[in-house]
Parts: sequence; C-alpha cells; structure tokens
Amino acid sequence: MMKNNLKAVVLLSGGIDSATTLAIAKNEGFDVYALSFRYGQRHVIELEAAKRIAQHENVAGHLVIDIDLRSIGGSALTADITVPKARSMEQMGRNIPATYVPARNTIFLSYALAWAEVIGADDIFIGVNALDYSGYPDCRPEYIFAYEQMANLATKAGVEGGKKLKIHAPLIEMSKSQIIRKGIELGVDYSLTHSCYDPSASGEACGECDSCLLRLKGFRDAGVKDPVRYKI
Amino acid sequence: MMKNNLKAVVLLSGGIDSATTLAIAKNEGFDVYALSFRYGQRHVIELEAAKRIAQHENVAGHLVIDIDLRSIGGSALTADITVPKARSMEQMGRNIPATYVPARNTIFLSYALAWAEVIGADDIFIGVNALDYSGYPDCRPEYIFAYEQMANLATKAGVEGGKKLKIHAPLIEMSKSQIIRKGIELGVDYSLTHSCYDPSASGEACGECDSCLLRLKGFRDAGVKDPVRYKI
Repeated sequence: MMKNNLKAVVLLSGGIDSATTLAIAKNEGFDVYALSFRYGQRHVIELEAAKRIAQHENVAGHLVIDIDLRSIGGSALTADITVPKARSMEQMGRNIPATYVPARNTIFLSYALAWAEVIGADDIFIGVNALDYSGYPDCRPEYIFAYEQMANLATKAGVEGGKKLKIHAPLIEMSKSQIIRKGIELGVDYSLTHSCYDPSASGEACGECDSCLLRLKGFRDAGVKDPVRYKI
Repeated sequence: MMKNNLKAVVLLSGGIDSATTLAIAKNEGFDVYALSFRYGQRHVIELEAAKRIAQHENVAGHLVIDIDLRSIGGSALTADITVPKARSMEQMGRNIPATYVPARNTIFLSYALAWAEVIGADDIFIGVNALDYSGYPDCRPEYIFAYEQMANLATKAGVEGGKKLKIHAPLIEMSKSQIIRKGIELGVDYSLTHSCYDPSASGEACGECDSCLLRLKGFRDAGVKDPVRYKI
C-alpha cells in the first residue's frame, strides 16, 4: 500500500537489518526520518555506516542523539566485557549474550516516540528480528506489541484520540537470508552497512563475533557475496 | 510491608512529587538508587535540588544521566516557547500544556529500566500524579500499567522468568496537598525541593507558572507554609 507523504521515524543503526527496514519504509511510501544513537559504544564505525545509508537513501531527516548508556553499564557493547568469539549458532541461541544492552530497544523506541510526536509521525519502524535475534528479550513480537500499546497511552495523540501510533517491525519473522534477499530486491547497498561488534581500527569486520557470524551465514544462505571487508 | 535490602530505582527530579516518592520508597524498606536527568532544560536549579535531596535522604546511589531532548524539540521546557503564566486551575486542566515534553516519562522510565536490570532491582518508583497532572498523558494510571506490562517483556528478568518488574506510582491518585501531608509525615524537607518552570537566576520561584501555582495551592490546602523563596 502506498502512503502519500506520511512521515515515519526509522531506527537506523547502520547494520543490515536497519538498512533493510529503512528501504521497506521508503518502499511503502513513507517520508523517512532516520534516528541513530551515539551511545558509549566502543566503535563509531557503525554510526558512520548509518550516515552513509541515510545519505544514500536520501532520507527527509537524520537525527543522531547522544545517549549515555556507559554510565549505566552492564554490556560488552558499552563496558569492558570481552566480546564472545566463534560461537556456534546453538551456543548463541542458548543464553542471552554478554553483548545484550539492558533495555536498549526500549530506550531507542522512547526517543523515536518523542521525535514522532514532535514531527507528527504516526509510524515508527524498527529492524528487530526474532529468529536470528541471538537471545535478546526486546526483539520478540510480544515485546513490540506491548510497546505499541504503551506508546498509544503515552502521547498527546493517544489522549486526544483519532491518531494511532504504529510500531512496524517488518523483519521480525524473517531469517537473515530472507532479509538480505528482500534488501537486494529493494536496492539496498549492503557495502555501506556495518555489523561487527569488534572491528579493526580501519573498520574491517572481525568475522568471529556473533554479529559477523550471523551476517556471514545470512549472505551464504541467500547465495550472495557479502560486500564488506573482513580481516580473516 | 518491610523489604529487607531490596533495591529500588527512584526517578528524582528535585520537585515535591519525586522527593515524596523517594521518602515513600525508603519507608517501604527499599535501598534507594536515585536517577536524575540533565536534559536540555533551561534551568539546572532543579538538578541541584535533586542532588541535595539525594544527599539528605542518604540514598545508596544517585546517577545523573545526560539526555538530549533539546535536539528533538517540541516543548517550552526544552525549547524557546514561552512558559504560560497565571493560568486558572480550569485553564490548566483543559489542554495539554506547552510545557509538556513529548514522551518524557517514557524516556525516563526506559533509563530506569536499564539501570534496574544492571543493579538487579525489580522495583521502579515514579512520582507521577493523575489529579494535579496538568494534562500530561503519561501521568495516567493506564499508562503506568501499560509501561509495566511492556517492561516485563523487555528485559532478561522477564524472559528468564521468576522475577517480576513493578512500576510503583504511589502518588498517582493523591492531590498535591495529600502528597505534601504524606511527605511531612515521612520527614521530607521541602525546603530542598524546586518546582518552578521559570526561576530567577538566583533560584527564586516565579510563583506564576503552572508548577508554582499547583505547588502553592497544595501547601495552602495542606495548611502548611511553603519553605521555598518566591520572587513575588
């Protein structure tokens, strides 16, 4: 279905999932307002990828918000915990990994909700994925649904009635290879994306962290060559 | 009921409501971890009040997080919109005021949720109030309930089962004068609090903004003298 000039806030991390989600929102006819975060992560390479993607997709707006997750602590992505390497798919699925950032999607969606209210958008897109989600609680459909319920009570629109806020999670039931195939169909340039939790100083992916392993498996299963550089 | 050494995250703005909420959490036996925000607000006087209260109440921890609401815009508290003055209670109740910050409580609670998960707290206290709430959608009981539902799906505790996160809003059905009486009963020092949306450079309250008017009416109705200084 085509929407005419309706605005959508799209969470954009710079990885495969959010780049594909952005392309899906555009393809549905939304004017895209991309939202990224600079959050005490050990690498800013991801954010550079987000900027390249936003520019390449010619978004209506791109806001980068500084958030201070490091002061809260509790994750290998924001604190000094070792990033696990070379785990099997089975090992990844078994536990919530050390790279899990507490309440991260809840914080991200809350800023998206605030921005949506200010710009008059009723639609928020998030590239969460329940299949390849590596054990994160805030990537499940029931979480997204509960967030949407809450969001409709949190804002002016919800009180004044009429408008209805929708959280779109178009990738939630897709495998990584299905996501990549969908993205290629929509013209996503995956050479602009970044997934690695532990890249080299020059931005090469490690090829061994959970995120690299899921990405490489996705490209392999999709029968497509991953265009980013790996150091191994 | 007394809890023994259970941790609770308490949102602390530095106003009457959050100071009273903190005292209630302490009185219920929780070890209090106070959480405040530095968020592009035009005055930092409120934050100084939060620090004084945290110190006076001898909290187990006080975290101040920088958040970047100004880049999102949309409120008299973060942008250059005039703070409304000398409105009647009826006028305040009629519309959502210009001082409403989009999704503010949702953002605040999301950080509280992250911190609660890291420190192992199952309880979050927020001093929202549905009676004197001046028209804010995210101060209603149905909003708090929906947030709690979502929070229990968002975190490790919710997935791994057993633990249950609770959002406490002990003031939600209380009038400002009831809140003040409760606080006095619990030994809250209201001279440490700050409520004014538009204070003077030296920290005196204006006495005319919605927040001052609600505060002054609350003390009047409680039959107690407000210990803070007003410039009028």
